[in-house]
Amino acid sequence: MHCYKLTIAYDGTHYSGWQIQPNAIAIQQLIQDALKTVLKEQVVLIGSGRTDAGVHAKAQIAHFKWTGQLDISKLLISLNGLLPHDIRVLKVEETDIDFHSQYSTSGKEYHYFIHLEPVMDPFKRNYCWHVRRKIDIPLLKAAAQLFIGKHDFTSFANEQHAGSVAKNPVRTIYRIDVCETDGGLRIEFEGEGFLYKMVRNIVGMLIDVSSGRRPIEGIPVLFAAKDRRQASMAAPSQGLFLVKVNYKEIGNRA
Amino acid sequence: MHCYKLTIAYDGTHYSGWQIQPNAIAIQQLIQDALKTVLKEQVVLIGSGRTDAGVHAKAQIAHFKWTGQLDISKLLISLNGLLPHDIRVLKVEETDIDFHSQYSTSGKEYHYFIHLEPVMDPFKRNYCWHVRRKIDIPLLKAAAQLFIGKHDFTSFANEQHAGSVAKNPVRTIYRIDVCETDGGLRIEFEGEGFLYKMVRNIVGMLIDVSSGRRPIEGIPVLFAAKDRRQASMAAPSQGLFLVKVNYKEIGNRA
Repeated sequence: MHCYKLTIAYDGTHYSGWQIQPNAIAIQQLIQDALKTVLKEQVVLIGSGRTDAGVHAKAQIAHFKWTGQLDISKLLISLNGLLPHDIRVLKVEETDIDFHSQYSTSGKEYHYFIHLEPVMDPFKRNYCWHVRRKIDIPLLKAAAQLFIGKHDFTSFANEQHAGSVAKNPVRTIYRIDVCETDGGLRIEFEGEGFLYKMVRNIVGMLIDVSSGRRPIEGIPVLFAAKDRRQASMAAPSQGLFLVKVNYKEIGNRA
Repeated sequence: MHCYKLTIAYDGTHYSGWQIQPNAIAIQQLIQDALKTVLKEQVVLIGSGRTDAGVHAKAQIAHFKWTGQLDISKLLISLNGLLPHDIRVLKVEETDIDFHSQYSTSGKEYHYFIHLEPVMDPFKRNYCWHVRRKIDIPLLKAAAQLFIGKHDFTSFANEQHAGSVAKNPVRTIYRIDVCETDGGLRIEFEGEGFLYKMVRNIVGMLIDVSSGRRPIEGIPVLFAAKDRRQASMAAPSQGLFLVKVNYKEIGNRA
């Protein structure tokens, strides 16, 4: 048995997200179907985690197992030949048989893009949140600091399905950097892992605080309340990019 | 009579180009229709020049004349409310009555984007040319130098309609800068004006030369030949951006 690791970039605009679901076009499904066409057999492709409808990935990681030895450069070309142009397999590697794209992760990095000019840039329409409110950037940076570290993020996580609360809502965020860009902001999140909609919920909160809708002092109160309903609405999906998945040291079989 | 100047950005992917034509959706048409809705009267919107199907603009300039005084900030909001999200009016200004978006130009700037990685970036799929050939960048830069200055560009210009050759095929290019970007190139062109398809035809030639398909010595020969059929194919439209239109000194009426 061999284990193959794929690095995948996708524009999530026209998809229902990464994960296979009924009556919707998922990115996982399209790649799995392309693999079936190439390998002439059904395989299960497992991603590092789901991304929602409209969310993008610069480098999603997925793996599948296969009995035979594959020509990885041929596989890369075949998959990209079959996939639509808004999904690209950037890399195919053979990796350790024990590698698991979801369970072997040690951290993830997401970027969230915000446009702050009065008129939207038409080239960014599917890739950022157009915020028309006046934003106090130093206040936004101060608020972001409060989310760094180990916290119970219940107030900033949604249920994936009705009633399905994450068993353990404690997560650690290593880094949140607020970077000023041409016309807006890029908020970089790095953490050991993120709960469902957690990044978008935090961004929604940061914008509410920095636009004066909510006081910064409310953030510790919300952490203590452990109640999603009291916190801000999620920022829209199109501003979110999964940019990197980190793994524990596992040797690639080059 | 008042003269109003619009600065417009558009993603040309889904349009037949700037200029109104039968049986196709043109950007000029959509903005003119939006103006008609707002002003309740037909006006003629004149652009600095056409851009082809798939070509983008960061700052196309257009003007129209109107008997009355308009609230320019209201007009900006109304037009953007009516236009599709891939077309945005960035600015509305009242300008000198003698201003003409096409005839008052003193120069234009275009950028052409090329992606050189083996796999295309899905986020750039509509905004650059994916060149899979091995490119000699110093040679490309040397070839670009040969196009700077005043030349008869007949070999690098297409007829807009069958038999319609530009009356004067002599143009002056002030600057061509080849900038290396993340994964590719941006070729910046600045000139007094450009003939139909001239930038794309020059880019096609530069790529042929820098990938070894044609000798650099062929460029002066082509200038002398004044024959479009002997030169390289045009680079594809989606890599081209109109980024700036320069005008002779005309005071804005602020």
